[in-house]
Amino acid sequence: MKVRVLVSFKDSVLDPQGQAVKNALHTLGYGGVIDIRQGKVFEIELEDISVEEANRIIPEISDKVLANPIIEKFEYQIIE
Amino acid sequence: MKVRVLVSFKDSVLDPQGQAVKNALHTLGYGGVIDIRQGKVFEIELEDISVEEANRIIPEISDKVLANPIIEKFEYQIIE
Repeated sequence: MKVRVLVSFKDSVLDPQGQAVKNALHTLGYGGVIDIRQGKVFEIELEDISVEEANRIIPEISDKVLANPIIEKFEYQIIE
Repeated sequence: MKVRVLVSFKDSVLDPQGQAVKNALHTLGYGGVIDIRQGKVFEIELEDISVEEANRIIPEISDKVLANPIIEKFEYQIIE
């Protein structure tokens, strides 16, 4: 089973990396870019487990290891 | 329009961050994790442009700014 976890700053948290990328794009002439938020993506290959089991484990490891729940949020998709 | 760009190392490139996360999860008892690859995700808000225009601009800025095409690959989805 393959799962993709997306971790990004909560909307209320400033994202200086995203801002820097946005400014770089404006300098290069891409003025149509209104906003950019940068985050992390984890592609996790798991031993074959049930979808229920995955729905239990993935939020657990996201909360404990992949994201910092104070300033970050996560979402995940089972992709395979 | 909102676009999500996922940037990750090419499969042939070692991913030490992903390895470190995998080892951390094994230490915590999540032995079912076979592999983890870590990458970056950019959520880009664009002025309203056509899908064709987006399909021209997004690969361009991914290649120039968001990813290092020598060691990284990218994929994108128009999400809104």
